[in-house]
Amino acid sequence: MSRPSEELTRACRRRQAELSAWLTEQGLFACVVDDFENQRSNSLRWLCGQPTDALLVILASGKSILVPWDINLANERAVADQIVPYTDYKRSFREAVIGVLRESGLPQRVGGPRETDPASDPRPRVAFPARTSHLRYLELSGDLPGALVEVSTPGYESFITEKRNVKDGMEIAATRRAAAITNELVDLLEEIVRGSGDGLREIEVAQIIEREALARGAEGLGFETLAAGPARSWAIHPFPSYSNAPFGAPGLSILDFGVRVDGYTSDVTMTLIRGELSAEQERMVSLVEQAYSAAVGALRIGASCREPALRVEEVFSAAGQRMPHSLGHGIGLDTHESPVLRTQLESSESTFLSGMVFTIEPGLYDPRLGGVRWENDVLLTDAGVTILTQARIVRIP
Amino acid sequence: MSRPSEELTRACRRRQAELSAWLTEQGLFACVVDDFENQRSNSLRWLCGQPTDALLVILASGKSILVPWDINLANERAVADQIVPYTDYKRSFREAVIGVLRESGLPQRVGGPRETDPASDPRPRVAFPARTSHLRYLELSGDLPGALVEVSTPGYESFITEKRNVKDGMEIAATRRAAAITNELVDLLEEIVRGSGDGLREIEVAQIIEREALARGAEGLGFETLAAGPARSWAIHPFPSYSNAPFGAPGLSILDFGVRVDGYTSDVTMTLIRGELSAEQERMVSLVEQAYSAAVGALRIGASCREPALRVEEVFSAAGQRMPHSLGHGIGLDTHESPVLRTQLESSESTFLSGMVFTIEPGLYDPRLGGVRWENDVLLTDAGVTILTQARIVRIP
Repeated sequence: MSRPSEELTRACRRRQAELSAWLTEQGLFACVVDDFENQRSNSLRWLCGQPTDALLVILASGKSILVPWDINLANERAVADQIVPYTDYKRSFREAVIGVLRESGLPQRVGGPRETDPASDPRPRVAFPARTSHLRYLELSGDLPGALVEVSTPGYESFITEKRNVKDGMEIAATRRAAAITNELVDLLEEIVRGSGDGLREIEVAQIIEREALARGAEGLGFETLAAGPARSWAIHPFPSYSNAPFGAPGLSILDFGVRVDGYTSDVTMTLIRGELSAEQERMVSLVEQAYSAAVGALRIGASCREPALRVEEVFSAAGQRMPHSLGHGIGLDTHESPVLRTQLESSESTFLSGMVFTIEPGLYDPRLGGVRWENDVLLTDAGVTILTQARIVRIP
Repeated sequence: MSRPSEELTRACRRRQAELSAWLTEQGLFACVVDDFENQRSNSLRWLCGQPTDALLVILASGKSILVPWDINLANERAVADQIVPYTDYKRSFREAVIGVLRESGLPQRVGGPRETDPASDPRPRVAFPARTSHLRYLELSGDLPGALVEVSTPGYESFITEKRNVKDGMEIAATRRAAAITNELVDLLEEIVRGSGDGLREIEVAQIIEREALARGAEGLGFETLAAGPARSWAIHPFPSYSNAPFGAPGLSILDFGVRVDGYTSDVTMTLIRGELSAEQERMVSLVEQAYSAAVGALRIGASCREPALRVEEVFSAAGQRMPHSLGHGIGLDTHESPVLRTQLESSESTFLSGMVFTIEPGLYDPRLGGVRWENDVLLTDAGVTILTQARIVRIP
């Protein structure tokens, strides 16, 4: 069994230290990060390298305690001051939280009546994820009478999100490796579809992507490939995501995939067109091409992340069309992370920053005509706008 | 584009009507079921056939309103009295909830001061999922001043869970088809690994499973296949779930997969042994075999779902071993649903009922020796215990 690389160890130590410093600044005692089935959070992996299924407590005092479901995986992958098997807490989230916090010096109970105003409550504050359920919030408040259970936004997760929004050198390097593999696959897939007769199936294309990505050193795919031949490309996300249906047959086929390297994923979409299209289909393709150009032209550090989405909306609405999804989204350890590129105002509007990596993916869909989507990944740096991937709309006679 | 089958339509109508009747009985105005990224719930599909990404409101009055992210998919798949595109509510969960409830006659505001005792609050009660976040609970309470926002357990989800726990004829038929395909794959995989030289890779095995499952009419896989060769089988859930590492090489290889038919999944694990094992490894294999037999022997309608897990714990603890995961879990639309078969007492202890479908999967793992797990799917009916699947521990000289 191996141990985490020195580079990852340094990065995790730095991220944990920054978070501890932030907790101290905010007067918090600790925060809890968790990633379990149905409640995933890649902030776990970002903070300590453990890819999945664990509870991580970061203390303002600077200590990190990891409670992994799989102790063997943690011994190989995780960077934390202390690693305690989940079985030590009967594999119960509540017992693990209570146990770790007590062992970290959280008082079990504070004398005197409880304050009702949180601002003047003398108890140490422990922050939990914003997605903490109302019922768990009530449970934890009862379980930890010596603490003020805090679930808020913005909170420590906003601090983490803000850090994760801007990728560091190690993260950009991983993203570039993912993009490089993606580009080899884009070429390969174009060649395969061009050369195929009528017999190519959606699942074959999906399996080629996965096999060739792993053969090139990818950790895996970023998400389940969406391969939709002409009969199914009208769906934004076809269900199931690929089937035994023909792919690359006459009409519009959509292929949406991502390659993951050291946790960081790419996310691209090709549209493959075989044969003559109808005038209506040609118009869809042309609108998506115009929208893509308009979006790329609106990328600029310091601009609002709404800008490119507004430009795309102008293109589509002038033609009486509407896009049923966002224009793009940040990528990284998560396939969908911030910023979101959409026209609607978010509660806090994002601005393009150097170090952001995100997708641009205009698309149009029609149950009769099929769908068209064109998606690539963008890296913003002080040097400018880099389109990392080379997915494209491919025309095959 | 097609429409849902008559059988599915009848089942969804029946389930919706039963839930409406239950809401009426409980004095609730409506309940909200949702399935979106990071907050999945297959109860959506169970209730209305829409496989994914939608909000469903069921009124006590008997009406169902679906707000799907993909309107085209809903028109093809969903059974609901009314279908409204998510874009009509700016793709906002909050706006969709407020809009649908208002259009359904929920008063916007009730005069007079609010009661603080929920039991005597005169406002109509609207139930949300138990996993509703504390922050969303606060938001919704503000958004819907005319309603009492309810997040509780047991609540309407417990009613649904109880129904989903016991499969009906259509569900059992789908599960049996999934099991039949699974059994063909078990035979095929044994043959392939037996016949393979040193060159077989984890990803090849994983891709064979998916390709052959789809070719046999499966909708897809129930979950990402876990294929762990001797170098990685020590992990309960290897990460990544398959890689380019050798599979079926000398030592212990684990293969955990599920086949989904019409939404219902199987879930089996084979352990493939090549060559001579060490005495310690042989002991692990033998203990898992004993545990499996003990578990199957403890299955009986009316017995506690803890019983087989306690029998397995006896086997392992007598040998100084401990299993780091539950003995089994219900399967269906979800890969993990109730009942849970584990030794710890749940808040409400489950009892084996006719119509339950669940896994039995004892396993032992050691970072030096590798892992062994043996998992099959069980159907309980009044006729007795049926082991639906035929996964096994395979020895290859």
